[in-house]
Amino acid sequence: MRDQQSTTTSALTLYEQVAAQLTGMIESGTFRVGDRLPSVRQLCRQMQVSVSTVMGAYRLLEDRGRVEVRPQSGHYVAVYSPALPEKPTRSQPAQAPSQISSRQLTGRLLRDAENPALIPFGAAIPNGALLPVEKLHRAYTTIARREGEMLTRYCMPPGCLPLRTQIARRMLMAGCTLTPEQIVITSGCQEALTLALRATCRPGDTVVVESPTYFNILQLLETLELRALELPTDPCEGICLAALQEALRDHPVRACLLQPNFSNPIGSLMPGEKKRELVAMLARQNVPLIEDDIYGELYFGPERPDVAKAYDRTGLVLLCSSFSKTLSPGHRIGWIAAGRFQDDVERLKLVSTLGTATPLQYAVAEFLANGGYDHHLRRVRREYAQRVAAMTQAVGRWFPPGTRVSRPQGSFVLWVECPPPVNALRLYDLAQQAGMTIAPGPIFTAQERYQNCLRLNAAYWSSETAGALQTLGQLAQGMVSLPI
Amino acid sequence: MRDQQSTTTSALTLYEQVAAQLTGMIESGTFRVGDRLPSVRQLCRQMQVSVSTVMGAYRLLEDRGRVEVRPQSGHYVAVYSPALPEKPTRSQPAQAPSQISSRQLTGRLLRDAENPALIPFGAAIPNGALLPVEKLHRAYTTIARREGEMLTRYCMPPGCLPLRTQIARRMLMAGCTLTPEQIVITSGCQEALTLALRATCRPGDTVVVESPTYFNILQLLETLELRALELPTDPCEGICLAALQEALRDHPVRACLLQPNFSNPIGSLMPGEKKRELVAMLARQNVPLIEDDIYGELYFGPERPDVAKAYDRTGLVLLCSSFSKTLSPGHRIGWIAAGRFQDDVERLKLVSTLGTATPLQYAVAEFLANGGYDHHLRRVRREYAQRVAAMTQAVGRWFPPGTRVSRPQGSFVLWVECPPPVNALRLYDLAQQAGMTIAPGPIFTAQERYQNCLRLNAAYWSSETAGALQTLGQLAQGMVSLPI
Repeated sequence: MRDQQSTTTSALTLYEQVAAQLTGMIESGTFRVGDRLPSVRQLCRQMQVSVSTVMGAYRLLEDRGRVEVRPQSGHYVAVYSPALPEKPTRSQPAQAPSQISSRQLTGRLLRDAENPALIPFGAAIPNGALLPVEKLHRAYTTIARREGEMLTRYCMPPGCLPLRTQIARRMLMAGCTLTPEQIVITSGCQEALTLALRATCRPGDTVVVESPTYFNILQLLETLELRALELPTDPCEGICLAALQEALRDHPVRACLLQPNFSNPIGSLMPGEKKRELVAMLARQNVPLIEDDIYGELYFGPERPDVAKAYDRTGLVLLCSSFSKTLSPGHRIGWIAAGRFQDDVERLKLVSTLGTATPLQYAVAEFLANGGYDHHLRRVRREYAQRVAAMTQAVGRWFPPGTRVSRPQGSFVLWVECPPPVNALRLYDLAQQAGMTIAPGPIFTAQERYQNCLRLNAAYWSSETAGALQTLGQLAQGMVSLPI
Repeated sequence: MRDQQSTTTSALTLYEQVAAQLTGMIESGTFRVGDRLPSVRQLCRQMQVSVSTVMGAYRLLEDRGRVEVRPQSGHYVAVYSPALPEKPTRSQPAQAPSQISSRQLTGRLLRDAENPALIPFGAAIPNGALLPVEKLHRAYTTIARREGEMLTRYCMPPGCLPLRTQIARRMLMAGCTLTPEQIVITSGCQEALTLALRATCRPGDTVVVESPTYFNILQLLETLELRALELPTDPCEGICLAALQEALRDHPVRACLLQPNFSNPIGSLMPGEKKRELVAMLARQNVPLIEDDIYGELYFGPERPDVAKAYDRTGLVLLCSSFSKTLSPGHRIGWIAAGRFQDDVERLKLVSTLGTATPLQYAVAEFLANGGYDHHLRRVRREYAQRVAAMTQAVGRWFPPGTRVSRPQGSFVLWVECPPPVNALRLYDLAQQAGMTIAPGPIFTAQERYQNCLRLNAAYWSSETAGALQTLGQLAQGMVSLPI
């Protein structure tokens, strides 16, 4: 691959000049991440050059990582520029089940998210300014007027039918044919995961998770007295299937809890073929897959990625999700399609919280039906793609040399791997003193790992918060230059 | 006690005539259950009779159970008339821990409650027509306007401070000094109970409950793999403390889960002194008391009964309640004051559902602050007292001779003990065919008991539903007259 400098010399070939022009348009914001660029034919006409020149320019930009080609579709502005830091390597956790600890920190982290004085680079909360707040409140008013007293009644599991119908319809786009009867509404995705684990496991059982994985999954496993078996995970393609195969052979694995679409914190997206293989492998061993798809709608690519549940032929996949990352964390509206565990999940839901809040189930159903959810999603996907790209570049600029950054293809968090002298727990304290939160790496594992890693929430990236990230980079730099 | 017939003979003494007049006013509805009757002085003036005549009339009415005297306060219309059926005797469950079953029926029962075609004598749901629906919706609109985007954010445990403040203030009336910091908001009382059991017990442990007890408590124990130890319970004064003392000696009791105020289904109210003794007895053995006070605000007497938590000196009482019976079951807003288990409960809440729905926490807080909750409660207490009284009389009229009925001093459910040939499960099916639901006795125990008992929801008692109760009585009569 050529160096960027070589394109800025004076004697450019014709296709290099076209590429430079396109690069300028991208850098000036004429075309933004995810935008489709003009077709080859259009560019020939506009720039008065030949087809082979335009093709050469696009190939060059593709080599530089500025443009990606989508078959049958055209050229699109890619998420990353060539000056980006390296991405992290595949994780290598110890492959033995662990008890989980480090509970204080995770609670503190979530509570910090409520402190308006701190810039929220820590918790993975969506940006409030990008949520359809007014429309959600209006949806409540609409159904309150229409339904009145009905909204004060219990809404027993499986929950509000109009909402389950909307969810079933949406899941078609994720390759998954569900009927409303197969869905149970929950108090957010976290309750869905809780019910899924309670329906499939008993205290003492071993559950496979990605490494690193969302800290509240680890905390949940601990409170249910389950053991976490963390497996190597690729930052692009997700959990390593060879390692999973071995784990199934060597350990009494009772369930897998994975995030195939935009895993938190590392942002991996498991390709469709790999999902099919995963589901088939687990089916052969009769091991349930608890699939957390909470970020599934926040894809940066052209299409909604399939869920693993789309490949489920045996009812062993329990698909969990919610509207917390796209509509409102505060509404606590999630759901689960639990396959053959449906009856158990319904009963556990009934017995542990009776039902999910009736007025909010109906308000979200009303919004999904008439509030322009897809329009809203198109907007936030574009926003998050741009913020993720910009924050990635900024980390490359301000963090110590050798820092690696994940390449999420969806959601809004970045996994940052600093050089070893950086201590993320210490950095967490310093960052807080400097007016921001971060999520330190060690909470994403039950092992002693990721001390030099952190997760950043790019949803709040903006010109106003850029200074805070620069400060954070300097704090990290300070740890690298210090004698240890 | 004199027979009612004797007062209807022609030759009445003067005070019998005064008593007859007062009885007429009560029966015609001029004075209703819980109303204060005119003072002795007022009656002397109005009826132009002597003080001793009025005193004699009141004594007669007191003997007949139509009037009750409250020291320093006066004469009040009593809940029960002398023609009432007997109350049930103290329960005598087998005092050995049981595994729980009968899950299908309870789920069906709760779902039946959503069927508008059935008269809801089954589930213990408040009457929707008595809920402040409009005001609750208005409270939402008010806070949506005021708080906007904040309502879409997570509200992490312990939860919304204005709501916890309102709850702490209200609990003063129940003799309990709590700070907002000691309260965690939950998704209804059921989640509070779930968290309390998870914080205090481990699978296999034994938990003491009343007999009969609320079926979802039994179901909850089963899903948590806990064993229920059902103890004899007096229909007026609650669980038998001598039996509890023995149980503590003979069994490894890990916790007690009781409803000292208006236990469901039997409606017992444990006197304050007995609560104090209960708390002290458990403290001596270091056994936590999980106190379910969900019906505590629905008292028919002059004063809010204390909670057992009021006598807690060691932090061993976990007080659980909600607004589901007084404001809205559908909002799913409950709470727990968990004493020394506070940290564990907060963490379990965080990890299992993250937080309770933010907009509804704020809406309920707004209603409590400005919606006239006390005014609302005064109205519904009076309504439920009247409906409970009227339904009790109707059961006495229409059910087989020998039927016994509980004497709840609060809430809105009746426990009906029919003569042994009546089979409540069979009656449940027949009742459903006849267009109503009932809650059959056997679901209120993990033992083979209460086959001839049922719980009725008096909240929906009215002249429109009276016919259904008459039908139910006839169905029960049919079972008694049939050769078995």
